[in-house]
Amino acid sequence: MSEVYAARRTRLRDRCNAGGSAAALVTRPANVRYLAGAAPKNAVLLLGKREDLLVCVGPPDDRPPQGRPDEALRVHALPGPGGDAAVAAADLATAQGADSLAVEEHHLTVARHRAIGSVAPRLRLADLGGAVEQLRVVKDEEEISCLRIGAEIADQALGELLESILVGRTERHLALELERRLVDHGADGPAFPTSVATGPHAGHRGHRPTDRRVEEGDFLSVCLGAAYRGYRCEIGRTFVIGTSPADWQIELYDLVFAAQRAGREALAPGAAFRDVDRAARQVLDSAGHAERLQPLTGHGVGLEIDEDPQLAPTAMGKLDACVPVTVEPGVHLPGRGGVRIDDTLVVRPEADGGPELLTITTKELLAL
Amino acid sequence: MSEVYAARRTRLRDRCNAGGSAAALVTRPANVRYLAGAAPKNAVLLLGKREDLLVCVGPPDDRPPQGRPDEALRVHALPGPGGDAAVAAADLATAQGADSLAVEEHHLTVARHRAIGSVAPRLRLADLGGAVEQLRVVKDEEEISCLRIGAEIADQALGELLESILVGRTERHLALELERRLVDHGADGPAFPTSVATGPHAGHRGHRPTDRRVEEGDFLSVCLGAAYRGYRCEIGRTFVIGTSPADWQIELYDLVFAAQRAGREALAPGAAFRDVDRAARQVLDSAGHAERLQPLTGHGVGLEIDEDPQLAPTAMGKLDACVPVTVEPGVHLPGRGGVRIDDTLVVRPEADGGPELLTITTKELLAL
Repeated sequence: MSEVYAARRTRLRDRCNAGGSAAALVTRPANVRYLAGAAPKNAVLLLGKREDLLVCVGPPDDRPPQGRPDEALRVHALPGPGGDAAVAAADLATAQGADSLAVEEHHLTVARHRAIGSVAPRLRLADLGGAVEQLRVVKDEEEISCLRIGAEIADQALGELLESILVGRTERHLALELERRLVDHGADGPAFPTSVATGPHAGHRGHRPTDRRVEEGDFLSVCLGAAYRGYRCEIGRTFVIGTSPADWQIELYDLVFAAQRAGREALAPGAAFRDVDRAARQVLDSAGHAERLQPLTGHGVGLEIDEDPQLAPTAMGKLDACVPVTVEPGVHLPGRGGVRIDDTLVVRPEADGGPELLTITTKELLAL
Repeated sequence: MSEVYAARRTRLRDRCNAGGSAAALVTRPANVRYLAGAAPKNAVLLLGKREDLLVCVGPPDDRPPQGRPDEALRVHALPGPGGDAAVAAADLATAQGADSLAVEEHHLTVARHRAIGSVAPRLRLADLGGAVEQLRVVKDEEEISCLRIGAEIADQALGELLESILVGRTERHLALELERRLVDHGADGPAFPTSVATGPHAGHRGHRPTDRRVEEGDFLSVCLGAAYRGYRCEIGRTFVIGTSPADWQIELYDLVFAAQRAGREALAPGAAFRDVDRAARQVLDSAGHAERLQPLTGHGVGLEIDEDPQLAPTAMGKLDACVPVTVEPGVHLPGRGGVRIDDTLVVRPEADGGPELLTITTKELLAL
C-alpha cells in the first residue's frame, strides 16, 4: 500500500509545484488519511521540499478504525498536548527551505491561518483549494473493493432487519439495531447516522429517528451505510408495512423507482453531472413533484459519505469511470410520508457492463 | 425559555459593543444553539444592530434532537441550497447599518472569511474570539438539570449492563448495547462514542472498541455519556472480571480511586484549575506514574462534551460555582491494562454541600 500513498502524494506535489508552491499543508482529516494512510486526531500532513511528514500531537494512534500510517512516511510527534500540528508543520516547512506553503483555506480556520503566519512570517501562504478532494474523486480498485465490502455489509444488515417483526418498534430502536448489525458483520461502524423514517416521516432525506412506532399501513424508509476501512457507502429503501399497499403508495413508489432507474441508467463515463440529475428529476417533475424535490439526486462517496461530485441541476463537470456515486431521488408528501430509493454504484464504461451496482438489496416494493 | 436566550444574546452584545463591534456573527454550532435555542444544519446567528436573525440554509429543522429555535428570534431562510448562511448574514448586517462585524475566527475558515469580505467589502471584520464559549462556562439551573437527567440515564444504562453476562462479549458489542440502553432511557443519543476497553486496553482514555472479547481476570473500563436536550455528561468506571482481582489490580485501582477522590475534593468555587489537576495528579505521580499520565485530569461539559475549563497543569483560571466538570484520572500500563474513574460533578460552594456528584454509580471495585 505504501507505494499507493507515495504516488498520491507525488500527484499532489506536482499539482502544487505547478501552482507555484514549494510545499503543501493538508489539514482536512479525510485528505490526510487519503495521502498518509491514517489521520490520527489533530494530525496534519506536510508535503515538504525535502521530505513529507505526518505531524501528530502526541504519538499517533494506529488502531484499526483510524487506519495505519504509511510506513514510508516519517512521523513527527509534538512532545506535549495543546500544540497545533499545523503551526508546527509550517515551522518544519521553513526548516526545509520552503518559501511558500499551500494550505486548505476551505478547512483551515482564520485563527490557525494567523498562527501559521506568526510562527513563519517569511512563508508565503497560498491556497491549495480542493486539490486533494479532486484527486479523491476517481477511485482505484482497492478503494472500490472497500466500498463493495461495505455495501455487502449494509445489504446484510438490512436483509436481517426485514426478517424481524417491525410493527410496534420505534424508529430509534430500528436504527440502533441496524447499526449493531453493521458492526456484527464487520463494519468499522455506521458510515453516517442511520435514518429510519415511518409513516409521515418516510421519504424525508436525513430524517433523524424519533420515538414514533411502526404502524400497519405505514411507509417505512431506511437509509444506512457501513464504513469499512474508512470507506463509506449508502443504501436506502422504502417498504410498506402490512399486507396490501394503498393505491397512492404503489403509485408513488413506482414513480420514484422509475426516477431512480433513469438516474442509474444515465451513469456513464462522460455523462454530465447535471444530465444524470435531470434524468431522475424529470420523471418526478413531470408527475408534478417539482416543488418537493431535494437539491440533489446523488453524490460521490468514499472516505467521506458526501464527496464530489454532486449530481444536481447546477453542478458543472462530467463523470469519469471508477467514480462511485449514489442515486437517491425521493418524494416526501407533507403529512403523508413518501419514498426514497438510494443505491451506491460505480461508474463503468459500457464495455465493462455499465454501472456497477454495489447495493444489491431488492428494489421491489416489499410489503412487510 | 425565550427570555433566557434573549438574556444571553444581550450579554454577548454588550461584550461585543464594548469591544467596538456593532454586530456579531456566531457560526460555531454549539454557540448558535446556546444563543438561539437550536442550531439547524449550516445555520448561523447574526446579532445585528437592529435585530437578531437566525440565518438558515433552507427551512430550519425543528425536530427534537436539534432543539427548537427561540420563538422570539426571527428566522431568515436562504431560498436555495448551496448558499453560505455566514455570507448572507454579513450582507444582512450591512443592511442593518453595521460597519463592523465580530466573527469567530477560531471556527470560521479562511475561505468563508474571504467570501464575507467579498460580499461586504465595507464591513470591518473583527474577532469575537471565545466570547460565547466563556459565557457558556457557568451554567444556569435549567442547564444543570439537563446534565443531571443525562447522568441519571448513563447511570441506568451502565447499571443494567453490569447485571448481564459480560465474559465472551466483544468491546464493540458492549459499546453498542450501552448506546441502545442510553436511547431506551430517553437520551437524544450518546454524548460521545462510547468507549469499552478490556484487558490490555483498559484504562486507555478514548479507547475505540475493538473485537476483543471480555476474559476472566480482565480489567474492564467503560466510559459513556448521554446527550439530553443537547447537554452532554460523562461517566467512566473500571471493573474486574471474575471472582478475585489480582493484587496489582487492587493496588492500581485503589491508587486511581484515591487520585480521583482528591480531584473531586479539590473542586470549589475559587479553586485554580491547575490546583484541582495537581490534587489528583500528585497522588499518581508519587506512586511513580508521572510518565504515563494524561495531559488533563478533567474538563468542562455542557452543549459539547469537551468544553472550558481544562483541568490541566498549565491551565490558567479558577472555578466558579455552577461549572460542571469531569474528574477523570487514569493509569494505563502498556501491555497490562489499567484503570480510569470518571465522574461529572457541578462545582458548588461549601455552604451548599460542596461539589454535586451527578454520576452516582458506585466507585467500589466490583468483581463481575
